[in-house]
Parts: sequence; structure tokens; C-alpha cells
Amino acid sequence: MPSPAMNADEQAIRSLIDRWHTATAAGDVEAVLELMTDDAVFLAAGRPPMRGRKAFAAGLRKLLETHTVESSAAVQEVEVSGDLAYSWSVLTVRMTEKTGKESSSRSGSALSILRRDAAGRWALMRDANLLGPPA
Amino acid sequence: MPSPAMNADEQAIRSLIDRWHTATAAGDVEAVLELMTDDAVFLAAGRPPMRGRKAFAAGLRKLLETHTVESSAAVQEVEVSGDLAYSWSVLTVRMTEKTGKESSSRSGSALSILRRDAAGRWALMRDANLLGPPA
Repeated sequence: MPSPAMNADEQAIRSLIDRWHTATAAGDVEAVLELMTDDAVFLAAGRPPMRGRKAFAAGLRKLLETHTVESSAAVQEVEVSGDLAYSWSVLTVRMTEKTGKESSSRSGSALSILRRDAAGRWALMRDANLLGPPA
Repeated sequence: MPSPAMNADEQAIRSLIDRWHTATAAGDVEAVLELMTDDAVFLAAGRPPMRGRKAFAAGLRKLLETHTVESSAAVQEVEVSGDLAYSWSVLTVRMTEKTGKESSSRSGSALSILRRDAAGRWALMRDANLLGPPA
């Protein structure tokens, strides 16, 4: 049986994942940035690692200039050990051009590492994005 | 400063990663299987999650019937918290056909979750493979 403390952590991490997708859909880049560590690293196939909150922010801002992004995560697992946790989710991401309205959907897993800071707040620190090609 | 205990864990995990690649190159499937949990899950872009040691074994045995696999991992990070750890490595994988000798190389990151069992032994339990297309 998970302890009540474990449940609180798992709930906090599931809530973080929800807020990530809600804030992205709303175009609220600042709110997304609050959910990651300064030194977060984002990994995806076929491109170099994206290092740090600043690089992520620049990339997301650029994308949101031309697209809206609707996404959701079906959380498969969250496991916490001390101040470290991982989550595995199956993502669905739909991007739609603001002009032209052309849209594409991708889905696939994300494996993420999260850290709890001294204030007890969880934040994403490493993320492996396994979205497949557009469907 | 990492504690001496942390260093021992990190060394054990780095050694596990080394043995993984050495055993794969040697075609020693049994030795690779000892490095993962029964319920290990392997994630890659564009294909469904591969669940469990048995499915992994079948896939690797099939591949090794027709190919030799040389691979290496440049470990970027290992972090341990209690009985859970993650590692981030940059992989290079070269596959060569046994007949024809045609070969291809791929590289990219792997983000892995490891667990320490009751006997103190680390094993891989979740793996996100971000190898790009053949170079």
C-alpha cells in the first residue's frame, strides 16, 4: 500500500502534468516554465538535447506564434523515491496552424524525471519525448 | 558531495551499462536479460511500448540471428535516490548484417530508470530509446 505521503507526491506530480498541458493549450508560457527546473533537459529522437528553461521557452514561444497546441497525457505510472520521481505518460498532441488551420496529430510516450526542491515543490528536470511521426 | 554509498551505486549502474553493451556485442542474450527487471518496459518513438523481459529477449534474439550489434554509451548522468535511479546516456549503435555485411549506424540519447532490489542489485526497469534515423 502506498503511504499517504506517497499519495500526496503522486497527486502533486499528476497535477503538474495536467497544468503543463492546460497552460500549453492556453499559450501561457510562463505557467509552463514554472513546472520545470532551471536546468531541465528535453530529449527527443533525431535532434540534440535541448538544455535549460531558457531554450525551452524560446522554442515554445516560437511555436505558439504560428500554432495552437492541444495536448493530453494519459499517465501510466508515477513513482516517487525521496526527492526524485519518474512518470511515464502516453501523450497525444495536436498542432494547428493559426493561419491556414492545417493541423497534425502525434502520439507516443514521454518518460520524465522530476525533482522535489527544498520547498517541497515538484518540477520536471529531464524529459524523453517519444512522439511518433504525424498520424 | 556524493556520499561513498552514492558512489558505489553510481559505479554499479555504470558497470551495468557497460555490461549491457559488451554482452549485446557478444550475442550473449542471457547476460543482457540479467540486467533488467522482469517487468522492464522499453519505449521508442513510432512503436508501441515493449513490455517485459520475455518480449525483449524475443526481439533481441531475432535481431541477433541476422545482425551483429556494436554499441557504446557515453554516460551523461547517473542519479540515485533510495532504491530508484535514472541514467542519461548518449548511445551509438552500429548494426551489421551477417550476410551481405551491410551496416548502419544510429545515435541518440537513452533515458533509463533503474531499481535496486532487496538483494542490493540494480536492474533496468524503464528505458526511453531516442536513437535517431540511420546516419
